[in-house]
Amino acid sequence: MKYVRFRDPAGAVRRGELESGSVHFGNQSFALESDEIDILPPCEPSKIVCIGRNYADHADEMGNDVPDRPLLFLKPPNAVAAHGDTVTAPAGKERIDHEAELGVVIGEQCRHVPVADAMDVVEGITCVNDISNRDDQREEQNWIRGKAFDGAAPLGPVLATPDEVPEDASVRSRVNGELKQDGSREQLIFPIPELIAEITTYMTLEPGDVIATGTPEGVGPLEDGDEVEIEVEGVGTLSHSIRRP
Amino acid sequence: MKYVRFRDPAGAVRRGELESGSVHFGNQSFALESDEIDILPPCEPSKIVCIGRNYADHADEMGNDVPDRPLLFLKPPNAVAAHGDTVTAPAGKERIDHEAELGVVIGEQCRHVPVADAMDVVEGITCVNDISNRDDQREEQNWIRGKAFDGAAPLGPVLATPDEVPEDASVRSRVNGELKQDGSREQLIFPIPELIAEITTYMTLEPGDVIATGTPEGVGPLEDGDEVEIEVEGVGTLSHSIRRP
Repeated sequence: MKYVRFRDPAGAVRRGELESGSVHFGNQSFALESDEIDILPPCEPSKIVCIGRNYADHADEMGNDVPDRPLLFLKPPNAVAAHGDTVTAPAGKERIDHEAELGVVIGEQCRHVPVADAMDVVEGITCVNDISNRDDQREEQNWIRGKAFDGAAPLGPVLATPDEVPEDASVRSRVNGELKQDGSREQLIFPIPELIAEITTYMTLEPGDVIATGTPEGVGPLEDGDEVEIEVEGVGTLSHSIRRP
Repeated sequence: MKYVRFRDPAGAVRRGELESGSVHFGNQSFALESDEIDILPPCEPSKIVCIGRNYADHADEMGNDVPDRPLLFLKPPNAVAAHGDTVTAPAGKERIDHEAELGVVIGEQCRHVPVADAMDVVEGITCVNDISNRDDQREEQNWIRGKAFDGAAPLGPVLATPDEVPEDASVRSRVNGELKQDGSREQLIFPIPELIAEITTYMTLEPGDVIATGTPEGVGPLEDGDEVEIEVEGVGTLSHSIRRP
């Protein structure tokens, strides 16, 4: 099953089922890219827990070693942006990068989840762009100016149940139609159940929280007006544009 | 004015005015430490933005230089704990520390706030313990296991309007009644308006969000069963205990 959260023409927030390019709720149907509805992020995370250096080829392109346990960082709710949004990057920076990621949406409140049970707390999979302001990320102990700014985490538009997403699902980005990243879920150094177990050793995950599982090689700069697409096989494609003041 | 948020005997969440040690709401009054009410955190932050190394003497005791702009990190909503709670630290760690801090509670949604207008977005001041798991903090790029675990940010119990809090308000901690930290708001390297201006250059602050302004020298370990008090002059005293599994 695939779901899309949206605001209907009457202003009500709904979650509809996506089938054959249309979103169905009750007796209403809308084309996914219809002007009649506003597509919303698929969930309202209290936090996005992000994983750094979870693909060996990306750690390598950034000149970093592969970590011996997941490198964790956070994006707060102000970072969420929706499919179709224009994200305004922090002003006056040299380098703002795209990072295509497979996002895990949590379905129930959980703590101390064993690896063997971890997929039981997953509601579904979505697309995430972990937009990164490298100017500040390079200078900071914690990646706050670098990764937690408003709009730094476009999410969606589709939430797909885990059965829709192959174990070797491709994770891709395109900028202005040109393929930039082309990785696979099977390249994850720490797979989804291990991430959930490690994170919930320290903190409670809430329904709607998101784990952004890391990015494959091929990250690169976004310029003013660029159109970005993040595609996760079995889920769909997240599109947004970027403004560089 | 001083306020306390609490759950009344009927289970309703209320914010009452604190006067002469009693909390008043409507025609009801309760002693602050009464068994009839549950004291809640003074606000429900979507994020806590914390400041590292904002007192020169604490940066020095940790062997760090004073930063040339605020060192920022985040605690998510799962870190919030209330006055009177027992905080369970992550298991099997050597060193869990207290850090007494003056907390700024934001009153309105805001972005790009100039220094001159920054106090207009402040609803009040509260007490924060920025509990820190040094074992992991030392090893991590981003302080997530170190600082963002469940219960890592006890808050409250009082929210005092800014006029109640002197410019040189003392910021103190006691462990089992023994004074451990004794700093002053006037020692802040980056004062509150500069913190608000810098943070809102990058992100929107929401009503109820908290800025934890950093800790003075004297941080130290917490053992199983320790009773911690964080006192900010003009606000009140936050008390909680610690469990070390």
